[in-house]
Amino acid sequence: MLSKSTNVFWHENHVLRADREARQGHPTAVIWFTGLSGSGKSTLANELDWRLFERGVSSYVLDGDNIRHGLNGDLGFSPEARTENIRRIGEVAKLFADAGTIAITAFISPYREDRDKVRALLDRDEDFLEVFVEAPLEVCEERDPKGLYKKARSGEIPEFTGISAPYEAPLSPEIVVNTSSDDVATCVDRIIDVLAERGYLPAE
Amino acid sequence: MLSKSTNVFWHENHVLRADREARQGHPTAVIWFTGLSGSGKSTLANELDWRLFERGVSSYVLDGDNIRHGLNGDLGFSPEARTENIRRIGEVAKLFADAGTIAITAFISPYREDRDKVRALLDRDEDFLEVFVEAPLEVCEERDPKGLYKKARSGEIPEFTGISAPYEAPLSPEIVVNTSSDDVATCVDRIIDVLAERGYLPAE
Repeated sequence: MLSKSTNVFWHENHVLRADREARQGHPTAVIWFTGLSGSGKSTLANELDWRLFERGVSSYVLDGDNIRHGLNGDLGFSPEARTENIRRIGEVAKLFADAGTIAITAFISPYREDRDKVRALLDRDEDFLEVFVEAPLEVCEERDPKGLYKKARSGEIPEFTGISAPYEAPLSPEIVVNTSSDDVATCVDRIIDVLAERGYLPAE
Repeated sequence: MLSKSTNVFWHENHVLRADREARQGHPTAVIWFTGLSGSGKSTLANELDWRLFERGVSSYVLDGDNIRHGLNGDLGFSPEARTENIRRIGEVAKLFADAGTIAITAFISPYREDRDKVRALLDRDEDFLEVFVEAPLEVCEERDPKGLYKKARSGEIPEFTGISAPYEAPLSPEIVVNTSSDDVATCVDRIIDVLAERGYLPAE
């Protein structure tokens, strides 16, 4: 179902989001992970992406690895920079959803207002699935995969979420997973179940 | 061919660009249109996108409609803002290519250096296909689809490319099309031919 529109000069063809979704065999959405550093967001996001790929779903992970060194390499970690960071990620996630790909984002995204703005930005309310990755600060700090908590405690890193900058947990996330009590597979299973219930997976 | 890597905590699975390209049945790339306002970039980009969609190729257009009002809505038209505009678009195009989708961009992108930086940003040299949309300034100004040239001539719009700001034509674009001598279909045919020659189209 491709649609035609006309401009003053030429007929113009546009492939619509619905066309892309129809071809992919599944609707698109933005799956937005949020949680403390070390809570497991990126690990869960990539495992989810892998599982979706295996099921024929078109998805893609936006995380620190491909965003903070690229598109948002010009941004620091002040409150303003964090807000701009999330704004841009939200805009890019929206483009992916429009292009027929489920965007999976894995960023601390500590401010509730910033996340809610992304939700409001999307075309449909149901396009935004917020996944709260719950893990106690003590557990995250114990893991400290990149040694960041140590640097934050020593003052080498200022404005570190959970230590010297706030983290605002979601009030009504679509999905909650707890990586201190459940393993990766269990957490991803839960997310997959919700996606299946909501019709985001193609028939197997 | 999914690859596994290990981090200090958990095994992590990552879907690679090669996995996505294999599933799509075609390699990805960035098809970068450049040319004056009114030269026909967006029309050609959307027609190309449509033609690729019909052939089963995964592609997506980034143009003023979805970028200037979204991701880059905070940027003006000063030389610095234009450079930042193109930098961000290049980064987003790179993400799409990595995600298995051919990115088609349609922006004036007047500075040679900015376009060359995008080329350098991509993983492989052959990932960047520059399409110069040639049309004489007089023709573009005569078309003036958005009334912008009129406003530029009256001084209402400052720093307008071709009138009060420079346009640096590509020195060795992969593809040149001329919308003042050829119609849209002919121009898009030429681009499709080059894509086919270079192996970007799946077998029909």
